[in-house]
Amino acid sequence: MKKLNIGVVGYGFMGRTHSNAFLKVANFFDVSYQPVLKTICARNAERANAFAAKWGYESVETDWRKLVESPDIDLVDIASPNDTHAEIALAAAAAGKMVTCDKPLGRNPVEAEAMVTAVETSGVANTVWYNYRRFPAVVLAKQLIDEGRLGRVFHYRAKFLQDWTISPALPQGGESLWRLDVNVAGSGVSGDLLAHAIDTAMWLNGRINEVSAMTETFIKSRKHNLSGQVEPVSIDDACAFLARFDNGSLGTFEATRYARGHKALYTLEINGEHASIMWDLEDQHRLQYFDHRDEGRVRGWRSINVTDRDHPYMAHWWVPGLQIGFEHTFIHQLADFLVALGEGKSASPTFREALLTDDVTDAVLQSGANRSWVKVRPR
Amino acid sequence: MKKLNIGVVGYGFMGRTHSNAFLKVANFFDVSYQPVLKTICARNAERANAFAAKWGYESVETDWRKLVESPDIDLVDIASPNDTHAEIALAAAAAGKMVTCDKPLGRNPVEAEAMVTAVETSGVANTVWYNYRRFPAVVLAKQLIDEGRLGRVFHYRAKFLQDWTISPALPQGGESLWRLDVNVAGSGVSGDLLAHAIDTAMWLNGRINEVSAMTETFIKSRKHNLSGQVEPVSIDDACAFLARFDNGSLGTFEATRYARGHKALYTLEINGEHASIMWDLEDQHRLQYFDHRDEGRVRGWRSINVTDRDHPYMAHWWVPGLQIGFEHTFIHQLADFLVALGEGKSASPTFREALLTDDVTDAVLQSGANRSWVKVRPR
Amino acid sequence: MKKLNIGVVGYGFMGRTHSNAFLKVANFFDVSYQPVLKTICARNAERANAFAAKWGYESVETDWRKLVESPDIDLVDIASPNDTHAEIALAAAAAGKMVTCDKPLGRNPVEAEAMVTAVETSGVANTVWYNYRRFPAVVLAKQLIDEGRLGRVFHYRAKFLQDWTISPALPQGGESLWRLDVNVAGSGVSGDLLAHAIDTAMWLNGRINEVSAMTETFIKSRKHNLSGQVEPVSIDDACAFLARFDNGSLGTFEATRYARGHKALYTLEINGEHASIMWDLEDQHRLQYFDHRDEGRVRGWRSINVTDRDHPYMAHWWVPGLQIGFEHTFIHQLADFLVALGEGKSASPTFREALLTDDVTDAVLQSGANRSWVKVRPR
Amino acid sequence: MKKLNIGVVGYGFMGRTHSNAFLKVANFFDVSYQPVLKTICARNAERANAFAAKWGYESVETDWRKLVESPDIDLVDIASPNDTHAEIALAAAAAGKMVTCDKPLGRNPVEAEAMVTAVETSGVANTVWYNYRRFPAVVLAKQLIDEGRLGRVFHYRAKFLQDWTISPALPQGGESLWRLDVNVAGSGVSGDLLAHAIDTAMWLNGRINEVSAMTETFIKSRKHNLSGQVEPVSIDDACAFLARFDNGSLGTFEATRYARGHKALYTLEINGEHASIMWDLEDQHRLQYFDHRDEGRVRGWRSINVTDRDHPYMAHWWVPGLQIGFEHTFIHQLADFLVALGEGKSASPTFREALLTDDVTDAVLQSGANRSWVKVRPR
Repeated sequence: MKKLNIGVVGYGFMGRTHSNAFLKVANFFDVSYQPVLKTICARNAERANAFAAKWGYESVETDWRKLVESPDIDLVDIASPNDTHAEIALAAAAAGKMVTCDKPLGRNPVEAEAMVTAVETSGVANTVWYNYRRFPAVVLAKQLIDEGRLGRVFHYRAKFLQDWTISPALPQGGESLWRLDVNVAGSGVSGDLLAHAIDTAMWLNGRINEVSAMTETFIKSRKHNLSGQVEPVSIDDACAFLARFDNGSLGTFEATRYARGHKALYTLEINGEHASIMWDLEDQHRLQYFDHRDEGRVRGWRSINVTDRDHPYMAHWWVPGLQIGFEHTFIHQLADFLVALGEGKSASPTFREALLTDDVTDAVLQSGANRSWVKVRPR
Repeated sequence: MKKLNIGVVGYGFMGRTHSNAFLKVANFFDVSYQPVLKTICARNAERANAFAAKWGYESVETDWRKLVESPDIDLVDIASPNDTHAEIALAAAAAGKMVTCDKPLGRNPVEAEAMVTAVETSGVANTVWYNYRRFPAVVLAKQLIDEGRLGRVFHYRAKFLQDWTISPALPQGGESLWRLDVNVAGSGVSGDLLAHAIDTAMWLNGRINEVSAMTETFIKSRKHNLSGQVEPVSIDDACAFLARFDNGSLGTFEATRYARGHKALYTLEINGEHASIMWDLEDQHRLQYFDHRDEGRVRGWRSINVTDRDHPYMAHWWVPGLQIGFEHTFIHQLADFLVALGEGKSASPTFREALLTDDVTDAVLQSGANRSWVKVRPR
Repeated sequence: MKKLNIGVVGYGFMGRTHSNAFLKVANFFDVSYQPVLKTICARNAERANAFAAKWGYESVETDWRKLVESPDIDLVDIASPNDTHAEIALAAAAAGKMVTCDKPLGRNPVEAEAMVTAVETSGVANTVWYNYRRFPAVVLAKQLIDEGRLGRVFHYRAKFLQDWTISPALPQGGESLWRLDVNVAGSGVSGDLLAHAIDTAMWLNGRINEVSAMTETFIKSRKHNLSGQVEPVSIDDACAFLARFDNGSLGTFEATRYARGHKALYTLEINGEHASIMWDLEDQHRLQYFDHRDEGRVRGWRSINVTDRDHPYMAHWWVPGLQIGFEHTFIHQLADFLVALGEGKSASPTFREALLTDDVTDAVLQSGANRSWVKVRPR
Repeated sequence: MKKLNIGVVGYGFMGRTHSNAFLKVANFFDVSYQPVLKTICARNAERANAFAAKWGYESVETDWRKLVESPDIDLVDIASPNDTHAEIALAAAAAGKMVTCDKPLGRNPVEAEAMVTAVETSGVANTVWYNYRRFPAVVLAKQLIDEGRLGRVFHYRAKFLQDWTISPALPQGGESLWRLDVNVAGSGVSGDLLAHAIDTAMWLNGRINEVSAMTETFIKSRKHNLSGQVEPVSIDDACAFLARFDNGSLGTFEATRYARGHKALYTLEINGEHASIMWDLEDQHRLQYFDHRDEGRVRGWRSINVTDRDHPYMAHWWVPGLQIGFEHTFIHQLADFLVALGEGKSASPTFREALLTDDVTDAVLQSGANRSWVKVRPR
């Protein structure tokens, strides 16, 4: 088995999920590459060392430019805040490294386009961690749709509701709260939560052509952790939008961090002429499937416990009925990436595919600002 | 349409559900008899008059013997406490009246046998209000079982959980709390809640041959409303039993009034070789159905919203998706009774069928007392 | 108890729900008026006679003008298609009759305004049957909101999903399918399903100021039952809209008759700073309530079984844990109407209140047509 | 951090869950011992080598006696079939190794007693992998009970339903199906599924004093994988029992592998005077909690999403709202074991505690055989 030397930038939430994936993938999947946790890179040396000890990294680096240039590294994984994605990816691609990047690809389509160009110019394998697609139940949904079971599609709806920023006492910025700082994050719930919903939506239901959005910042200013001053909040705290898909179906999307009672309620539903599908992150192992072709008297939403061996990815885990967790989706994506790598390809979503999500997010933000329908940039 | 003059004994909870059924059945079902609320009978004249005014009874009677003998009455409905069932039914049958009786039939099989003999000797139409069978979803379950969809049955389980008697301050006896007085009720949860569960179980899954039970009275004494004294409590507060059905399947049953958090959680489940069914009173309009013959990848419990026009009784109500309530089950039973009457028959469960439930309840109480397996009396 | 002579126009679905309410209200509520089913009015004399027999109407009328003018009638109930509402209401009000009207009030705000003027000019009691507000769980939601438990409100979302018009073979128009004929109905899901959602939303969360909508007619032409010809379909088959409430909260609304698998999935949710509430027509007896002030470790969505005696309306029905059905909401509204009548008032929503819903629906349709945000007409 | 050299016996389902736990525990928990996957031991050398490669074991051994005696090994983990537990544990304890053993401890109390004696005589740290206790929601239940929130307990009920042995074509015995071979497994669902339910029940609700059980073998003979012959099946395919706990509460338990539609439906519920708790393996991250002391009008079952940082174990994983899987329970138990080890103790359940579960299982099997109430052996 070939070794694949990994350099990870960032030791936050995503640094942990990525590290776990690199470490475990070969225990559960038959892959021809064995990832090796070579180097963790982060500005804070003390914390980086502690992280390295916890996860078994061989070395620590505090300057990502050195990591990118190191001949010891085969793959650069970007798990750092959004404002670092483009710069690191461009350098890594230029250095001929494979690049795996957390989502969203860039803070905006301009950054994202440059990143696509970079990896395509240098021809390096690449993928973006839109991990929510990799829940077995969501992949099963994709299979059922691809098999044509739904017929003509009428509706797609998704929402992603959280409640962790309701307190006005919560500050913004800094290591743990950069998601509230527009300069670092690029946007609020649009690039964070809606990006997942949009990525999955287009994967399942095709291109979105145009959107009409409503955005809101409920709490207008918060103390900034870096300046120590109360500063304006410029991210979107909440965003809802109407969409028209290329296949003629109607979409409704909503995300917020002000939905009291919901920690991470990501739901999606698609209604077709013959069948409908629903999924809910809080019941991640189930797929709800309704098939109108079932005999009328016993027709009903089927609650499919997606843990059987013939369900996506599940033959690699335990026994039917037993569940896997959130972090497994990263392992799935990595397994797919490594399989694709063996075939000289990149795993979906590639940078190019992820750019399309940035395009939609961008149109959504524009629409929210100018209160009109906005067409998504054609590619 | 022929008039059917009704005399109801009892104005309590069941007096109301029965009155409502007699009053409404012809608005929703095509029946050849029009029930007329002729006489309400109860010992307390003042309350009986108020009840008559509320429901439109033409007259009031305080002595059930007069009601039974009245030439104005075609059908005597027994909605009074359990200790009155046998005496009234015997007199009514002797007077040639049809008899509809609330459940359980008697306080014990001796009373129940006498009641069966009485109605069969005089040849009068009769039925027992085991209304829980008449939920559309439960009738659908019966249809699916009768169609042989389950194959060999392995398991049946039912429970009926309530929590209304937990407080030691609750008294026993008298008009509103006779269910706690063993002399009036005959037994506690066995004759009250388990009787429903047993009736449905035998209807769906056939005869129960033997049982092993555990009964308990958690609160040993309570003030009695009639004597004003603290008196021993002799009913079973809770009862669970194991059962063997004649078809080889295993049964588990439980009822209690001490399950904090449950007002009326009556659930039933049957597991067959090919298919399984679950139902729950708190989701009364849904039937959960699992069919192993469904294609593996999309196999799951189907949540059937039993409100379509091809579902039992539902064509008589509103439009698909809209629900009916608890009291509708009495209307369904009455509609079935009136249809059967037109054909010169009695509607199930007849007194004879309901006697079998008393037999099982009796075996359960015996088993609880002597801590051994007890065979149900053969009939 | 004073008699209240009722004349009902229309014997369809709503004719039945209204008749049932008039007939039953006094059995369950202490009202000072006893409704009497005096006259049913409909163009088809044969069917009207059959309906009268089923429900016990004393007489039949085929010309609503005669009904309206009849000295025997105290209250004219409009249960006929939308295109008849205004004309009948104006005549009834002019004749000094009380008027109860099914929803939506008019096909458009012009009709609705005239109706408001008519009943206010003549000073007759009036109400519009927005019955979905009268589910006990929805009224409980209203109480909790009015008690200030939610704090600042951030979000309101509602959807009403059905699937009964997916087949292109379904015709439009005529007695049973007038809801698909824009001339009769005025609009499609907007005036039918969204009207309920909007009425409840404004009742719970206050005025809606502006909207951005997307409407679609999926099936462009259908055979018309009256002409026998294939004709264009001009109703909205589906409609989704974004809204801004006067209190600063964001709203999302959606309705469709093309959501395969859903018969009548009407859901609503409101998220406040301190607490959130969800309700779902398919679990009509439950209210989901989340209160962030609960102790953290045991905080969770509470599934309130709204069947206790201290829950709205429930003391009038059975015992805790036992459910009521769809039609009970009409009885509740009628009970409220009769109580208000005794106090010389009209029950909410009055014609004037219901006009506001027509205003929002109108803004939604405009917005869908011109693809822009539209302000709701100020009143 | 001290190294802890692990020798695992068995590479089946449990060999994988244990290996995963040893490998990952230090990534997520602060432990003072770092487990090292030293040796995997199994009879089939080829498969053992493949397993070692997959999981990174340093060496392979085909004779467990050599493993036990090896000075390289600090801890012997028994993940092999039940008939090997006692022999290996006795030898390991005699060799002074720590012993972690999969459940049930022995095939019967005689074996289990010997194992207890062995580890206590040699004074080695020990624990039994009753992992289902380690779901965060179950630990939260334990905390709430220990805090006295329930008051007097009336009821405990648990069931564990599977459906994987319904086909008569399924053989018994051999590497993958030893659970159907009574000589290897010791019993059927009693020692397999009920053991989990009993362990948790006694942990939460105290000692079980006596039981009345019903057992059944639905399919009387199956081909044996080792002999190639059709042989009698001697395990219990299904088992239900009534129980009386030492605290006066009533218990009902059921397990089966013939409940069509359920892969692993393990549910538990406890009803107390003031509060009740429910948990369900298929919703493993939720705890249902009902507290009667909540304000009446908004009282309801709380669905607690047990993923917050103040919930058991969850601060070690991701962020609130995101779930963990089945295998994490083994990591939790190992973390507890390693913490206890640092304090010179064993983690619960120790061999001595697990013996009590074998006692109950034994009483259950006796009761099933002799159809009478059986007292659990006093200890």
